[in-house]
Amino acid sequence: MTANTIITADTRINARWLIPVEPRAVVLEHQALIIQGSRIAAVLPQTEADQTYRTRETLDLNQHVLLPGLINLHGHTAMSLFRGMADDLPLMTWLNDHIWPAEGRFVSEQFVMDGARLAMAEMLRTGTTTFSDMYFFPEVTAQVAHDTGMRAQVCFPLMDMPTVWGSGPEEYLHKGAGLIEQWQGDDYIMPAIGPHAPYTVADDPLKEAVALSRRTGAALQIHLHETAFEVEQAVKASGIRPVSRMQALGVLGENTQCVHMTQIDDSDLAALSASGTHVIHCPESNLKLASGFCPVDTLQQRGINVCIGTDGAASNNDLDLFGELRTAAMIAKAVAGDAAALSAHRALEMATLNGARALGRSDELGSLLPGKLADLIAVDLSDPFLQPVYDPASHLVYSNHGRAVSHSWIHGVPQLQDGRLTRIDVPDLMLRVEAWRKQILS
Amino acid sequence: MTANTIITADTRINARWLIPVEPRAVVLEHQALIIQGSRIAAVLPQTEADQTYRTRETLDLNQHVLLPGLINLHGHTAMSLFRGMADDLPLMTWLNDHIWPAEGRFVSEQFVMDGARLAMAEMLRTGTTTFSDMYFFPEVTAQVAHDTGMRAQVCFPLMDMPTVWGSGPEEYLHKGAGLIEQWQGDDYIMPAIGPHAPYTVADDPLKEAVALSRRTGAALQIHLHETAFEVEQAVKASGIRPVSRMQALGVLGENTQCVHMTQIDDSDLAALSASGTHVIHCPESNLKLASGFCPVDTLQQRGINVCIGTDGAASNNDLDLFGELRTAAMIAKAVAGDAAALSAHRALEMATLNGARALGRSDELGSLLPGKLADLIAVDLSDPFLQPVYDPASHLVYSNHGRAVSHSWIHGVPQLQDGRLTRIDVPDLMLRVEAWRKQILS
Repeated sequence: MTANTIITADTRINARWLIPVEPRAVVLEHQALIIQGSRIAAVLPQTEADQTYRTRETLDLNQHVLLPGLINLHGHTAMSLFRGMADDLPLMTWLNDHIWPAEGRFVSEQFVMDGARLAMAEMLRTGTTTFSDMYFFPEVTAQVAHDTGMRAQVCFPLMDMPTVWGSGPEEYLHKGAGLIEQWQGDDYIMPAIGPHAPYTVADDPLKEAVALSRRTGAALQIHLHETAFEVEQAVKASGIRPVSRMQALGVLGENTQCVHMTQIDDSDLAALSASGTHVIHCPESNLKLASGFCPVDTLQQRGINVCIGTDGAASNNDLDLFGELRTAAMIAKAVAGDAAALSAHRALEMATLNGARALGRSDELGSLLPGKLADLIAVDLSDPFLQPVYDPASHLVYSNHGRAVSHSWIHGVPQLQDGRLTRIDVPDLMLRVEAWRKQILS
Repeated sequence: MTANTIITADTRINARWLIPVEPRAVVLEHQALIIQGSRIAAVLPQTEADQTYRTRETLDLNQHVLLPGLINLHGHTAMSLFRGMADDLPLMTWLNDHIWPAEGRFVSEQFVMDGARLAMAEMLRTGTTTFSDMYFFPEVTAQVAHDTGMRAQVCFPLMDMPTVWGSGPEEYLHKGAGLIEQWQGDDYIMPAIGPHAPYTVADDPLKEAVALSRRTGAALQIHLHETAFEVEQAVKASGIRPVSRMQALGVLGENTQCVHMTQIDDSDLAALSASGTHVIHCPESNLKLASGFCPVDTLQQRGINVCIGTDGAASNNDLDLFGELRTAAMIAKAVAGDAAALSAHRALEMATLNGARALGRSDELGSLLPGKLADLIAVDLSDPFLQPVYDPASHLVYSNHGRAVSHSWIHGVPQLQDGRLTRIDVPDLMLRVEAWRKQILS
């Protein structure tokens, strides 16, 4: 390329540090990232960019680290309106006595619209650019995400019981097929199938879910082996572990995401590994509900793709994926008995490229390679209590929280600028949330 | 009291919520807290305060929760200058290959002065009003804390090896006795004795430490049963567990604080319980270094007083005690297999009243009772992503981070006002920290 070849593009971001995730465990310094349209056009040293690119706008982020937008692969967004409503309770008491009754009473299209928007605001503020949702009225969540410009895998719920969203499996599958038809092929919204759990969905609807997934290519996400109790009860009732039952029903596979997986024996490892099934690790929910410990290091050593999710705000109680990463990295070490397990860089990979893999979109999401979609975030490391900075990757995982995220782009569109959300009206949202609080408390 | 009786006082704080810690698990609403001099004069409903008190200043904290200042009972403040320098390494590799060589090369009076000030700034910013330190040049840390107006237990280090602070046990004990003499009886500084660990201090200096503690009343703090390796090696070499050795040497007792305690059998429980020894739990350090899990619920059920500490920023990597509390509450549930273990209120108690008990000062610190010293903090719950608020105690522990702390007072003196430190020059501090970063990196 001669000195005369000048390329024009939309946006140039000058970053003090840049972690591309691909190649692994690399921290680049004084890089320029060029955005053209919805994609990353180039990542190159600033001195080279000066000679090559002319852009419509240039942003200097001289105390920031640039990295791919985070991918939060499990949650129930609208449950943000139940944040902190019931704590310090075991999973089944929490569900049976608090969450399910509250859901029956309050959840509506409007509840989901406001709750999902609250969750999206928090996720955007703290660095998430793509999330997965599994909740009632998925058509509402999909629309809110699309209007906001967030990328979302929206799993419609499937279970045997009637709920506010439908009378039973037949209606859920019918509505869900409509959701898939509506959104399939969309850049932002990935419609998916969300059978709740082995203990709430019978074999027949599970088989129909598998058939729907194969017919449409939609992914399947299911809560699986969340607690020892779940596995024990299944073995007592049927003689086989839920993972084995899922394997027999054809649920496992490269297009399937199993959430939680705190209980894992050799047969489970073999089934997950052979089928290419993805595991979504939700460390804070698992700890808070005393569900157990997911053996992340063991799973990764067996080549199983492990992603991360916050779970709903009702069992966490926030949607800050940086905080979740920190917990994941710390707990993985203690569970493995090895302080080298799940290093800071591997944790960042879990929240970016591994998530993209589970969504089947690692060719265009999850790392800062030229040609990929421009989903990226900047984290400001100038805070006094992030000093001194020896290694930005360490700080992102071990000292940071999501509030240090200053900027984000999704599909090349700015979503966060100097910590301010560009596409959500937060004061209006707060009025709506306060109205829900009063109604739920009364 | 008739309507005519008006009492004058210094400061009135009107708080939306107030968690006094004593009595346990109570959340009061619309309270006024009155400060007179260094002490809490009263806590009463705002309507009653209108009729009773006339104060020099009044502060309206209408979206805030007021609670006792947090007590961080274990750390190595100056190590904040090593934050993130070496991660993802086991304890002994981390110590032998990274921390100890760096300490030998860089630690000086000036290093301790700057590093301790950085740590104090972060602790004040995130809600800690009293901390414990164990590091070289304790006389420097004590002076910085005193000048800043923070309450601190300053443990002088004691070990067999020579270090930058002395040639060996004799010199450490001599200098330490001087430290105790200098500060004993001070309102802010509590001088104490810090034998490093069973594997670094021989019997004779431990006996002298016990004698010094008994003679002066100074507390003893020691790293104990941090890892399984420590206990195994001791048993292999001597036939007894370190806790039993400490018991035989007279180290255990009501004036002794054992830090970490991830390895606990029935004999340990009996020894700790019978002696009234306090346990300092450092969950994030234990996870990050893969040291193990402290069984907090079991300890508390045996009546053992459990406090909390962040450990140094080099193994954490921050000093935000709210984050530490969250990790403590979550991990205690998973370790106990009981989601009801270490509730939000019990976690707050661990970081306040339990800490005061370990310091022997529960008569004047650790809760918002009239007559106690005015060490208190306000946390602003108006942040969008702390909404909705059903239970402020839940939010403090499960959704909060220390940056939501807006105000603090120590001994009645304001230390933090609207998130701004009143007694530390942060820009000057940042220049000093940057100079250290450059020197350490070179």
